[in-house]
Order: sequence, then structure tokens, then C-alpha cells
Amino acid sequence: MTVELIFVGTELLLGSIVNTNGAYLAEKCAALGLASYFQTVVGDNEERLSQTLRTALGRSDVVILSGGLGPTEDDLTKETAAKVCGKALVMHEPTKAAIEKFFKDRGLEPTKNNWKQAMLPEGGIVLENHNGTAPGVVMELENGRVILLPGPPNELRPMFEELVEPYLARLTSQVICSRTVKICGVGESKAETMVKDLIDGQGNPTIATYAKTGEVHIRVTASAEDEKAAMKLIKPMVKELKSRFGNDIYSTEEETTLEKSVADLLVANKLTLACAESCTGGMLSARLVNVPGISEVYKSGVITYSNKAKRRFLGVKKGTLQKHGAVSRQTAEEMAKGACLMLKADVSAAVTGIAGPDGGTAEKPVGLVYIACSVKGKTTVKEFRFSGNREKIRESAVSAALTLMRGCILEYYSKVTFGKK
Amino acid sequence: MTVELIFVGTELLLGSIVNTNGAYLAEKCAALGLASYFQTVVGDNEERLSQTLRTALGRSDVVILSGGLGPTEDDLTKETAAKVCGKALVMHEPTKAAIEKFFKDRGLEPTKNNWKQAMLPEGGIVLENHNGTAPGVVMELENGRVILLPGPPNELRPMFEELVEPYLARLTSQVICSRTVKICGVGESKAETMVKDLIDGQGNPTIATYAKTGEVHIRVTASAEDEKAAMKLIKPMVKELKSRFGNDIYSTEEETTLEKSVADLLVANKLTLACAESCTGGMLSARLVNVPGISEVYKSGVITYSNKAKRRFLGVKKGTLQKHGAVSRQTAEEMAKGACLMLKADVSAAVTGIAGPDGGTAEKPVGLVYIACSVKGKTTVKEFRFSGNREKIRESAVSAALTLMRGCILEYYSKVTFGKK
Repeated sequence: MTVELIFVGTELLLGSIVNTNGAYLAEKCAALGLASYFQTVVGDNEERLSQTLRTALGRSDVVILSGGLGPTEDDLTKETAAKVCGKALVMHEPTKAAIEKFFKDRGLEPTKNNWKQAMLPEGGIVLENHNGTAPGVVMELENGRVILLPGPPNELRPMFEELVEPYLARLTSQVICSRTVKICGVGESKAETMVKDLIDGQGNPTIATYAKTGEVHIRVTASAEDEKAAMKLIKPMVKELKSRFGNDIYSTEEETTLEKSVADLLVANKLTLACAESCTGGMLSARLVNVPGISEVYKSGVITYSNKAKRRFLGVKKGTLQKHGAVSRQTAEEMAKGACLMLKADVSAAVTGIAGPDGGTAEKPVGLVYIACSVKGKTTVKEFRFSGNREKIRESAVSAALTLMRGCILEYYSKVTFGKK
Repeated sequence: MTVELIFVGTELLLGSIVNTNGAYLAEKCAALGLASYFQTVVGDNEERLSQTLRTALGRSDVVILSGGLGPTEDDLTKETAAKVCGKALVMHEPTKAAIEKFFKDRGLEPTKNNWKQAMLPEGGIVLENHNGTAPGVVMELENGRVILLPGPPNELRPMFEELVEPYLARLTSQVICSRTVKICGVGESKAETMVKDLIDGQGNPTIATYAKTGEVHIRVTASAEDEKAAMKLIKPMVKELKSRFGNDIYSTEEETTLEKSVADLLVANKLTLACAESCTGGMLSARLVNVPGISEVYKSGVITYSNKAKRRFLGVKKGTLQKHGAVSRQTAEEMAKGACLMLKADVSAAVTGIAGPDGGTAEKPVGLVYIACSVKGKTTVKEFRFSGNREKIRESAVSAALTLMRGCILEYYSKVTFGKK
């Protein structure tokens, strides 16, 4: 069964608002096992909306429209959809009474155009709106189903979850489940090459790769008669991906971010953390601090933008800065060691680099970043050459620092464990 | 002249990501005076993408597609669009060289599928990608223009602003100009009320308000035969807004962010800055450090998440922490004073609060944040009660800290100046 989404509103065409209903409805429909091939945004215009709805009805089983149900003259989704579906609009008394009550409760008088909202397509299933005055409607036709929903997310979401989701669930017998394998420290095209055979041979489950800054996510999606059966199809593929990417996979949980995976490692091993940042200027700490409960392990950090600050707060030697410069392997190493020592932490990460747009030279170009990580006295330094604008370089450096921290902690503990045996 | 937007990506149809490119491109195109009647989201599927592109070319002058230009097998936007437009794909040597350099700089080997990105439609105008490997392309046809852009916003946005915007501006004879009046420290509904009469009576120019975290932007837009005529229409409205919002307007320049306005004030007055952050964990510094040239005034910062760190790095008194707690007016004040003293700066900002989800009490609920700012020995502390999740509370605190810094610096200098007279 296929679903098609139509979003009605000139404000979307003008870019005045971001279409968050798009992702919301799409995700909900996918979870219900409805296949979706098109979404359209169209303005509050009868002719173009009619054309869009007719096209959608011609190729999809269910068409969901959102927006344009309000009381103003601009709002013509219901009128247009009813016309396309050959339905007359009739006064719906319970809705009229609800609108009367809505205004009375607020000590207000409804204006004439509020009654427009109580005119509903004959024979339609009315979807009560508990968070506004415009009800939604389901029209069941010979060639498909049309569902009209209000545009404001705080009206659309509860209406969808209370009334539309159960309605659609009854129509479909299939469910779609997915699992995301999250990889750090492997480039997108390398990751793609590593799973090319799986993509070429995919059926059910399907697999798809998504690039994020410093990360690649591989989504495995299966459809089946129930969640259990879908997960049974997904599991072997996730296992295969685990065998290929090994330790580069930091999580297969939807809610686990890279920074959370690092925080979890620190908490599990009771390691305190300190960050020493130059070009990232607090971004690394800020990402880590966004993990709830981080206060257990993250105690302090410093942003040492100037050379003086690197010396004062981290004990970087004057000679090191003079001989190798602030952006160097040696400075990064001393920053990380100094952070553990002076900020009294078990683990530290230090970042120093040239984020641009100025400050680059032929020898040390914009994008050159050194990242060091100390774990209980063992320090690793890596050189990176990132591209992009100032913000992109800094974001890439933060992801690389998190990846390096994760790697160093894992390595330290695997060695300790093996050493003891 | 009409424009139509097509967003390619199965992840959009599955609802895995929100289509932020939609609002971005729509707003940019509207500002260029291009009329837009349809946007479509379609998956990485040759047949459906061809159908969508043909429909768009049949009814719009310019079709912009974003997404699906990457190196993987899924990415077939370029191949499909070239076929629909009757163009062969040929190896573009400069792009090939750029990809070679990109990988060489990183000490990596390109994989075979990377070369796919250098195959471009014959006769197309190549749009260099400075933030990734996939270039964009403009194809000029008899019946219209097709523009292919990469999907990741950090690649699409700079490419659009550097190359596509000037290209499109040359095509349209009517120009649309806009000026954004940027306001901090005034809530959205208050701002809205303050300009309601202007919105109700608007013609050419139009005015629209946009709420950002801790900021409100009012966009004044006029269309005219040339830029000069448009600006003549805009100026009186901007003047009116300035008289209503006064000092709460931090800029009317497109490229000036709130953090840049603070950085500019610091640089102009030769004031060095230090930040002391608890719940924001580096976010405030990170925003300031994203301003190029900040190193002139920003020397260092500390993230003092634990009480111990607040004492060690900022000299907050043990008694203060015991009596009033870490989240208190008194602690914030001592943090700011300590930051100036111990980090040797003229100006400091300190943030301490409860970002949640845990840690709140009836007396000190989640969202309670104290922000202090010291300017040459004069310290101001403000209490805030923010709502939203952990990230939103932290972002609100950062905006409020920047607003407070701006206010305190302005106040200090107006007093100094007036005092001397």
C-alpha cells in the first residue's frame, strides 16, 4: 500500500517555515509499512492544488494533505479536495457546537468565517481536533483515500497519533522496521565500497548509507507481517556489517550519538575527562556536555586560544611553541598531557589547528589540525587535513577528536586486559 | 520567471531527516524574485525522478534539484537529469584533479566510485564544491534551466550563495531586495505586537518576523526595477523599526550574527574576553570562536562543570557554593569576576544553570540559569528561566549571555562617555 504526502501552504513555498510535518508524517507512515514515493509542496491555490491531488490519487492508495484547513479565505484545502473527490460540503453540527464551545470557553465571539470550519465533506470520517478548531477528515473513495489534516504541528501530531495512525494500521498488514549501524572514522566512499556487494544484492532487508560529518550511518530496513519477523530479517545483516566494520561501529542504537558512546565508555571505566581546545573553541566540550549525566566524568575544560593560555593552563613549553608552532604535533601532545596533569583527569583530548579563513601558509594550510588524546598517561597524536569553511573544519575536528578518544580508550583497555592475562 | 525545487533522497521519504534545504532554497529564490509553485520530494529512483523532472521542466523556467550527487550507487540524480536533458556525461578533468588532491591531502586513496563524481553533463556550467567532492552543475536547455546541487546543507548553502545566487540574479530583471533587522533580548510575541500595525498595513515593502533562539529577525522586502529603487522603499521601514526597537537591534547586516556583533564591540574597544561556562559546557565560547579574527580579543576560556573546577579556575568561594549552591546569582557573579581576574581579561561572561533532564528541584527547576557579565570590574547578573530540552535550554542560555554581554559593554561605554563630558 502506498501513501503520498501533500503539504499545502504558500509559507512553505516562500521558505518562511521549515516543513517539519514532512519528516514527521513520512517517518510515521514508513513505520506503518506504507511505501512512499512522492511528497509535494503546493501553495494555497485551487487550480494547482487540484492538479496535485489528482496526480497523487492516480498513483497512490492513500493521500494525506496537511495545511489550509483554517478559517481564513486563503485556506481552501478542504473545499478543493471535496470538489476533486466529488463530495458536497455540509454543515457538521458536532463541529459547529465544538467551535461555539471553544470560543465561549475563552470569552470570545466566533467570527463569521469560523463557521467555514464546520462545513465538512459529506460522508467523510471527521477527525476531532483537541488542540484547535479545524477538524481533520478522511474521505473514502473508490480509487483511494484522502486524509485532510491541519497544518500546525501541535494540532497535526496529536490528531495523527490519536486517530489517523490506528486508522492506517487497520489498512495495512505489513510493518517496516529499521536499525541503524553507526560508524566513525571511515570515509563515506570507503564504507560504500565495503558494502557494495550487500547493496547490489539487497532485497528485504534493504540497506542504505548516509554520510554525516565524520560518520557514516548504514540503515537496514525490513518489512514483514510484524515487528518480530522484521527484526529477524534485520539481524543477520547487522551481524554481517559488524563483522565488516568491527570496532569502527560505535552503536546500533537509534538514540546513541558518537559523543554519547564516548561518555558511556568514560562512565563505564570510571574515567574523568578534560578537554583542551584551541581552534574548536569549546565545540568539543559543548558536544560532550550535551550528553545527560556527563557531569559524572566531565569536570572541567579549557579553551586555550592564545599561546600564553596554552602555557599557563596546560603547561605547554615556550620552546615547543617557538620551535614547532602552536599548530604542531608537539604542541597537541603537550596540551593533552598538560590537560590530564593540570586539570586532574584520567583522559584528555586536545585540539589545535587552523580553521581559517586566514592564518594558513603553504606549509601549514587552513584545515591542518592536530588532535591528541591521553588515556592514563599514554598519549596518541594524529594529524588531519580537513576541508571546507571555518565551521565545517571545526565540526570535522570535533568528530575526529571524539573518534580518536573512543579509539584510544578502547585500545588502552584491550591492552590492559590482554596484558593481565 | 518561475522556479521549481526537487529534493532527491529516500531518507526524506522515510522521514529520517528534516528537509531544511526546502526552506533555505525557497527563501533564497523568493528573495531573488522567482515565483515558486511546487516543491517535490522524490526518492533515489531513476524512473520516478525522471517523471518528476519532466513535469517540472514542463511548467517551470528553472528547476533546482538537490541531493543524490554523491559517489555511491544510490546517487543517481546527475545521471538521471543528464539523460532527461539529453546530455552525455563526460570526464571533467579539473574536477578529477580536485578529487585527487582532496584524497592526497588526506593521505588517502580514492576508491573507484569517487571518479563517478567527476563525470559531468557535457556543456554544463560546473559549480565548484569547496566543502565536499561532488560539484554542482547548471544545464542550460531550450526549454529551461536545470541546476543540480549537493544535498548536505554545509555544501549546498555555500555553493548556492557563491555561485547560484549571482547566476539567478542575472536572469531576472525585477530585483527583490531585503534587509533584515536583527533584534536580541525581545520575545517573539512582544516583537510581533510591536509591529502588528506595520504588518497589517504592509504593501511594498513587505515585512515578516522570524523567531530564532533568543532573537527575532524582521525582514523587510521590496521589489523594484533595480536595487537602488528597492532600497529606497526599504529604508523608511527600517528607520521606523529602529525607532521602535532602539538598542535592542544589534545589526541590520545580513552577515552579522549576534556573536559577531559582540566580537565587533570587543575589538572596537580593545577589550579582551574570557568565558566561564558550566551548563553551556563550551557552547558560548564555540559560538564566539566561530567569528573569524576573534583571536585578537578572545584569549582563553574555562569550562568549570564541577564545583572543584569553579573554585580552582575561577576562585569561587567554598562558602558561596555551600550556602547558595552552584546554580545561584552569587556563584555566577563570582565566576564572572574570577574569570576576569584569573584569566586576565577585561570582559567576562559566566553561565551556570540546570540544563536537565535531571537535577531540577521545586526551588531550582530545570531551565533555571544565572548569567553574569563583568566589564572592567562592573558585574551584572541576570536570572533566566528557559524551557525546552537540554539542548534548547543551553542554546537559549548562550543567546542570553551574548545579549547580556552586548548590553553591558554598551552600557559601560555610554556611561564612561557621558561621565567624561
